[in-house]
Amino acid sequence: MPQDAYTPYVFPDLTHLFAPRSIAVVGASEKPHSIGNHAMRNIVEHSGFKGDVHPVNPKQATVMGLPCVPDVTALPGPVDVVMVVIPAPGVVAAVEQAGEKGCGFAVILTSGFSEADDWGRAEEAKLVEISKRTGIRIYGPNCPGLVNLNLPLGMTFSPAFKDDIAPGPIGLATQGGGLGRNMIQHNERGAQFGLWSSSGNECDLQVADFIHHMAQDPEIKVIGCLVEGFKDGARFAAACAEAARRGKPVVGLKVGRSEYGARAAASHTASITGSAEVNSTVFRQLGVVEVDDLDELVDVAMLFCRRMPTGDEKIAVFASSGGAASLCADNVGMAGLTLAEFAPETAERLAAALPAYANMSNPIDTTSISISHPDAYREAMAACAADPNVGLVLAPLPMDYGEYSVVNARALEAVQAGAGVPIVPIWMSERQGGGYRELARAGLVPFRSLRNMRKALRRWVDHGVWRQGRDAGWTPAVVTAGSPGAAGPTRTLSEVEGKRALAAAGVPATAPELATDAAQAAAIAERMGGRLAFKIVSPDITHKSDIGGVKLNVTPETAAAAHDEIMANAAKARPDADLTGVLIEPMAPEGGIEAFVGLSRDPVFGQVMTFGLGGIYVEMFADVTRAMLPVTRDKAGEMIGTLKSARLLTGYRGQAERDTAALADLIARVSDFALATPGLVEMDINPVWVGRAGAGVMALDAVIVVEA
Amino acid sequence: MPQDAYTPYVFPDLTHLFAPRSIAVVGASEKPHSIGNHAMRNIVEHSGFKGDVHPVNPKQATVMGLPCVPDVTALPGPVDVVMVVIPAPGVVAAVEQAGEKGCGFAVILTSGFSEADDWGRAEEAKLVEISKRTGIRIYGPNCPGLVNLNLPLGMTFSPAFKDDIAPGPIGLATQGGGLGRNMIQHNERGAQFGLWSSSGNECDLQVADFIHHMAQDPEIKVIGCLVEGFKDGARFAAACAEAARRGKPVVGLKVGRSEYGARAAASHTASITGSAEVNSTVFRQLGVVEVDDLDELVDVAMLFCRRMPTGDEKIAVFASSGGAASLCADNVGMAGLTLAEFAPETAERLAAALPAYANMSNPIDTTSISISHPDAYREAMAACAADPNVGLVLAPLPMDYGEYSVVNARALEAVQAGAGVPIVPIWMSERQGGGYRELARAGLVPFRSLRNMRKALRRWVDHGVWRQGRDAGWTPAVVTAGSPGAAGPTRTLSEVEGKRALAAAGVPATAPELATDAAQAAAIAERMGGRLAFKIVSPDITHKSDIGGVKLNVTPETAAAAHDEIMANAAKARPDADLTGVLIEPMAPEGGIEAFVGLSRDPVFGQVMTFGLGGIYVEMFADVTRAMLPVTRDKAGEMIGTLKSARLLTGYRGQAERDTAALADLIARVSDFALATPGLVEMDINPVWVGRAGAGVMALDAVIVVEA
Repeated sequence: MPQDAYTPYVFPDLTHLFAPRSIAVVGASEKPHSIGNHAMRNIVEHSGFKGDVHPVNPKQATVMGLPCVPDVTALPGPVDVVMVVIPAPGVVAAVEQAGEKGCGFAVILTSGFSEADDWGRAEEAKLVEISKRTGIRIYGPNCPGLVNLNLPLGMTFSPAFKDDIAPGPIGLATQGGGLGRNMIQHNERGAQFGLWSSSGNECDLQVADFIHHMAQDPEIKVIGCLVEGFKDGARFAAACAEAARRGKPVVGLKVGRSEYGARAAASHTASITGSAEVNSTVFRQLGVVEVDDLDELVDVAMLFCRRMPTGDEKIAVFASSGGAASLCADNVGMAGLTLAEFAPETAERLAAALPAYANMSNPIDTTSISISHPDAYREAMAACAADPNVGLVLAPLPMDYGEYSVVNARALEAVQAGAGVPIVPIWMSERQGGGYRELARAGLVPFRSLRNMRKALRRWVDHGVWRQGRDAGWTPAVVTAGSPGAAGPTRTLSEVEGKRALAAAGVPATAPELATDAAQAAAIAERMGGRLAFKIVSPDITHKSDIGGVKLNVTPETAAAAHDEIMANAAKARPDADLTGVLIEPMAPEGGIEAFVGLSRDPVFGQVMTFGLGGIYVEMFADVTRAMLPVTRDKAGEMIGTLKSARLLTGYRGQAERDTAALADLIARVSDFALATPGLVEMDINPVWVGRAGAGVMALDAVIVVEA
Repeated sequence: MPQDAYTPYVFPDLTHLFAPRSIAVVGASEKPHSIGNHAMRNIVEHSGFKGDVHPVNPKQATVMGLPCVPDVTALPGPVDVVMVVIPAPGVVAAVEQAGEKGCGFAVILTSGFSEADDWGRAEEAKLVEISKRTGIRIYGPNCPGLVNLNLPLGMTFSPAFKDDIAPGPIGLATQGGGLGRNMIQHNERGAQFGLWSSSGNECDLQVADFIHHMAQDPEIKVIGCLVEGFKDGARFAAACAEAARRGKPVVGLKVGRSEYGARAAASHTASITGSAEVNSTVFRQLGVVEVDDLDELVDVAMLFCRRMPTGDEKIAVFASSGGAASLCADNVGMAGLTLAEFAPETAERLAAALPAYANMSNPIDTTSISISHPDAYREAMAACAADPNVGLVLAPLPMDYGEYSVVNARALEAVQAGAGVPIVPIWMSERQGGGYRELARAGLVPFRSLRNMRKALRRWVDHGVWRQGRDAGWTPAVVTAGSPGAAGPTRTLSEVEGKRALAAAGVPATAPELATDAAQAAAIAERMGGRLAFKIVSPDITHKSDIGGVKLNVTPETAAAAHDEIMANAAKARPDADLTGVLIEPMAPEGGIEAFVGLSRDPVFGQVMTFGLGGIYVEMFADVTRAMLPVTRDKAGEMIGTLKSARLLTGYRGQAERDTAALADLIARVSDFALATPGLVEMDINPVWVGRAGAGVMALDAVIVVEA
């Protein structure tokens, strides 16, 4: 059955995981540098946690002045979070006690489970069973913990936690810890992460659950996620759809864009990495902004925090170096974005503020007055930011000029305080001087290179376009059941069966018939009329033409002879073959362009459609487009339009316009057919004949594979 | 005349510009914060300059304890460098005096010349005239000065000079100052610039001259250049060819890849930015490694300093975080590079050093033993670096872990000391902690992101391939004389003239003949025989088919009638047109694939060839390839092979293989023709018919434009 992407998912309420009222720490310790000591110190000393903390340790009476209980059963009552930092052999028992006591969540930092060996996999399976039986939800195992910087509360053993505490509107969901902490350390330049989940092996709770929680959290405006592998693609899609409904952009980095990465990530996280192309398709359709590196994730997320884009922002460049102005403008152009034209009043204000030798059109080069006349620099910047045509001001700063840079940074901060549009500095120097720190402190989050600015700005504007244009009613149907890896035996429909199934679904297809003797062939030919194609049908013969098993342009008059000739050729060439008969169908109309529509099951995201014009365009130029289902007629029209070769359909070099309306209709019907055929494993309609406008389309060949 | 790219250039000897024996400072001053004071302090206080320094100032008796002379004529004798920091109105007189006194170089920092206004342009023209007349060579004007960090000597007014002094093997040639200083400030992470020229308006000496000088300087191993616009493309090509001959890679960043950048750079530097596509073609052919941003220039240059690539390096990834290992391996794969397979002895050493739960295959994940057992971390790293299959070790460090990071950084340094391959850390955190500073100090020049590593590593390996494969004898022929901007009136050859010219140059082309009456048409047709194409010839008629001016498949029998019909149709459709006659040529053979060969004059780099298969492949997929001349047969074969659509020529889907040998020959002959035709402005052979292997090729149409 087609499955709605999010309505079937009841996402867990994680309120008291991220903001517990009480915490027990199993393995709490006084021993310096131990994991249990770090974990306790982070909660008791470095967090602003006001709830109850219960150290659990049979060998100590107190930890950090708090009374210990020997095990979880001895807790005065159920707690919201049981944090587990003891060695792996004791974890299952502690979690079982916690589940039976009615505790809400187990946060298991301990390693040595499914990522390690068979014993660990068996132990992890027990954790899953306990969760299902008792209702306790499990975070981890094999993870660095969970951090709520908006409280703040650090349920983590990381000695770096205390250095990273700053509240903020970005929620971050990762799997491993190292890459997540990298992003948290971007607070050096003013990035503002408020929540960070890092859920390790994800035996129960997973990235999707945290995205869904962050979508509800009123303090979170933007969600970042770093995914090494997916446990459940449909759940991920549903969570992202929920974030989109709440107007919160999700920025995603997915490991596994190359074979090396996919292999390494699969062994690291024991989850499925899936196909990079399909992943990008899914991200694009869900409005998840895909990035290529960690710093780029932070760049884009912070830009969203500063302002939600409309998609038609024009850019101003404000520099004090001619080279920086040129190179920055170059990057705006390379991104395909538009430089703003200043209104007359802006030009007047700039002329009043700047010397005659400055460049007052966009990109602005104030020349060295940033050093000699900082007030004029500030006034010119204010004029630029106040221009009605400007949607964002870029301020490239190529070098650290010591105290002068500090003064300029303060000018940017002052102008931003009175400006309606974001003023975005690009601190291009490797030297992080006082000016840089000033910009970070002021929340202007300097970009670190023009390249990164270019990439982030393009993504920011594109997301504005996506928000404007998105179909809020569209819901992805992620059908993952019976994905290729999990599927049992399959069966390929015969051409007659396949085309009948398509025709029944309203997909225009030739209607072949099977003749088992010459008389039947003649009768079928008489009924069909016109020029016909005859093909041998045999489960044992693939390359039909090679053995004389195909005849074209057969007429009713020559039908019987054609049948006998084909059967004779086949019997001669392959004496042992089982010959079913001869397939008869009308010849394809002359002319027309060939397209193809394919459907396959991605192991993560289920049914994905591929469309293209086939042949050279696909094989040499990879000119295909993909989509999750359902594909409506409108969506199909968009897919056709995204092909580089789309012009071939719309009258290239004076050729006839093709029937793109009928083609879009066919694509949409194939989508409906796929959704209505849950056992569908794979399908390839190739070629689809595309006639002139009004002449329709026709599936000429179709291979359909279903679960047996 | 075709011009050899470098032999005609006598590059100036800049030895005593970069390392003068004596310097006069015109405008030297005691006044604090003045340009003249900064300039003097940089030479006298912050440099290690041992030669004579002569302050020139009519109003002071001494500056910084050195006796002043009132003007240049009063110097005791000619000096190597006259540095000019006085206001623009006095500059020409001072330089004239310096030239007449026999001084070697004028370094003019003063602004207000061609970049400013008409007066400035006129003054700059006088500087050029003085240089030509007296032999003094001019650096600037409108520049921040010249820096030799290997002495050190700073002939600059920059107050930042004193912070940036560190010797190194990279020479850097820029035009503006801001972007250049950005790169110098990468010494924060251990980048090693030894020379930096920043030559402003370049009224005389230009980037090419500095590249040529750096190619000679034995202390320089790698050359970086940042070009906003070119003064002389041929000179640049010659300088880069010289660097290649001396085995020194040139890494280049060119502003002007978008219209915005090109316009801004042109107004900033008053030079020509040229076409981005042609620029990239030229860079590629000269072995100049093109980069996209400032940090990337430093990244690649430093990698070259660490080791020259062979082009077949295999990579090892050594991490202490599973996520970092995966993402780093992912980037190696995305770059199309290869992970090394470890030799058995390496596997044994790793197994002995690392715990069983570490990942010991490539990418290595040591897990947290980097913190708990730093000696084991170091031993494992040493094993990895000693593996015979490893050409380079990547060590991604996702976060700053305080003192632990310092310990790991020292381990990297220690292993590098005994390793034959580069160990390359990637400090991914925004937080530049002690570990980062340790890596920078040790000369390991940490990359700042996996993305930048990926890009640099790919360029590094590619340059190794280029070095192995380059044809050291090939010399670009940069014909810039009479470029479109400078050209006078032009003339388009008639089809008969054009094809005769091609045929004379050995380019297979149809040989059309002109008939001016029916009898002549019949006679020509009789002589040619076979099926013929007839076309009206008139300077006034472009769309010949539309007016019935073309007839195909004409035979000798129907020739006279066809002639008359065409003439009548033309006379009827265009009564005022001047009708020259009817062009007669054999029909193109049936079948075959169409290609095109074009030649145009780039304003910077002169004649550039464009080749492709035409039609859809060019218009929808931009599937073309470009080359500077001369294009040999071998080079032409490579050009054909770089097309994405090349498979169409080599037997795509069972079709016939095409005559690529004849096609390569045609391309090479067109190159020879162009070089032998100095007045050639533009040429478009389209289509070229390409027959089956052995059946040859044929230019079916050709438009050739020459200077009138």
